[in-house]
Amino acid sequence: MQLFYAPDIAPSRYTLTEEESKHCVRVLRLGRGDTLHITDGQGNLFCCRITDDDPRRCTVEVVSAEREFEKLPYALTVAVAPTKNTERFEWFLEKATEVGVSGIIPLLSEHSERRTFRPERGEKILTAAMKQSLKAYRPVLHPLTGFREAVETPLNGRRFIAHCAPAHSPGGKAYLADTLRPGEDALVLIGPEGDFSTAEIDLALACGFEEITLGSQRLRTETAALAAVMMASVVNNSQFIIHN
Amino acid sequence: MQLFYAPDIAPSRYTLTEEESKHCVRVLRLGRGDTLHITDGQGNLFCCRITDDDPRRCTVEVVSAEREFEKLPYALTVAVAPTKNTERFEWFLEKATEVGVSGIIPLLSEHSERRTFRPERGEKILTAAMKQSLKAYRPVLHPLTGFREAVETPLNGRRFIAHCAPAHSPGGKAYLADTLRPGEDALVLIGPEGDFSTAEIDLALACGFEEITLGSQRLRTETAALAAVMMASVVNNSQFIIHN
Repeated sequence: MQLFYAPDIAPSRYTLTEEESKHCVRVLRLGRGDTLHITDGQGNLFCCRITDDDPRRCTVEVVSAEREFEKLPYALTVAVAPTKNTERFEWFLEKATEVGVSGIIPLLSEHSERRTFRPERGEKILTAAMKQSLKAYRPVLHPLTGFREAVETPLNGRRFIAHCAPAHSPGGKAYLADTLRPGEDALVLIGPEGDFSTAEIDLALACGFEEITLGSQRLRTETAALAAVMMASVVNNSQFIIHN
Repeated sequence: MQLFYAPDIAPSRYTLTEEESKHCVRVLRLGRGDTLHITDGQGNLFCCRITDDDPRRCTVEVVSAEREFEKLPYALTVAVAPTKNTERFEWFLEKATEVGVSGIIPLLSEHSERRTFRPERGEKILTAAMKQSLKAYRPVLHPLTGFREAVETPLNGRRFIAHCAPAHSPGGKAYLADTLRPGEDALVLIGPEGDFSTAEIDLALACGFEEITLGSQRLRTETAALAAVMMASVVNNSQFIIHN
């Protein structure tokens, strides 16, 4: 299956962008009558037939549409401080998209190594990863957000802060994969290399966040962020057996 | 803690290589009497004191040694086909080391995109990741191994093959994170982008391998390999709570 991305697609007729048209007609050698799939990144998967294979304005007609294509039973948002090395953060964007994430919030925290964030490349990576892993949902890449705003913004679902300091709350830290339950929506905060400050951890707890650990290993920021994404996936895929 | 790697260290006296000496004395500005930690990558962590801060031949004396430093309660080996894009495989080597893996077998399978493997860069990445994540165990990077040899070599522990085709065995595929139990040693085979061939899957099953799925998402080869590593980590960290 070849997946194209068209956020503005509206049945029953659509003309691909010049770049997608070229890819479709010149690279993939698709022609009139051939079928291809298009997603709007909002969960809709359209099966389309090419009516005009113009390499600059390839036009298709929508044959059928599937809503909420492979919708995940949970919504996970990860707020993570961009890494000093941009490639590491971009790698996280790709992997999180493959494994499954609803949103990513580049987090500006006290010890952040990178205090600016340019979304252009990140957006491209999200689109490429969504198409490559054949998903109809495109993760939302939020703008760079300050720590206070991130913890004070109301959210449906559980809210967690992963940090390396000793637990501030008497109950200690739970292991994310143990405490998260199938179907639960969640926001997970992942700090910079220098970890969250004591004040940030206290503020998060005051806002109702739960302290968590991601395990006994020392993980880089982007690895910790992906670990959170994979744990949510494991929790929701558990008891998942393919019989065929 | 600053960790150095010296596979040949033998108490009670050791002279760092020229490169490590320079890093130690010139970059970190460590001098006579300062302490540093050295691992042999075999589980030994040596606490050392600098006796001669020569920037080319820095010599230390071993003050104390800790055996089996943070030894994992399980041994996981991942056999995975090197990706066409070498960086993706190298990325896996780094992340698997951080999360925890005992060995990596570059796998040569029927649909492999890359049929040669040069270990030099990979070995450097394993060392850097071990030092960066403060581990005393260095994963073993095996030579490029043919599929038949990989599945016919006897191994203590459970053996799994992850593939995307319908299950060959009547029992279907189990989800790795469900079937793997804490403390179990395991070998997991991860195929190339084109997946394992039917013949390879049948051969593995004939050799006693269990068919597994890594979940419902379509993962790239290196992402699937890391997912297996993270699942083993989750299984072994489960019920892991930090109270302090």
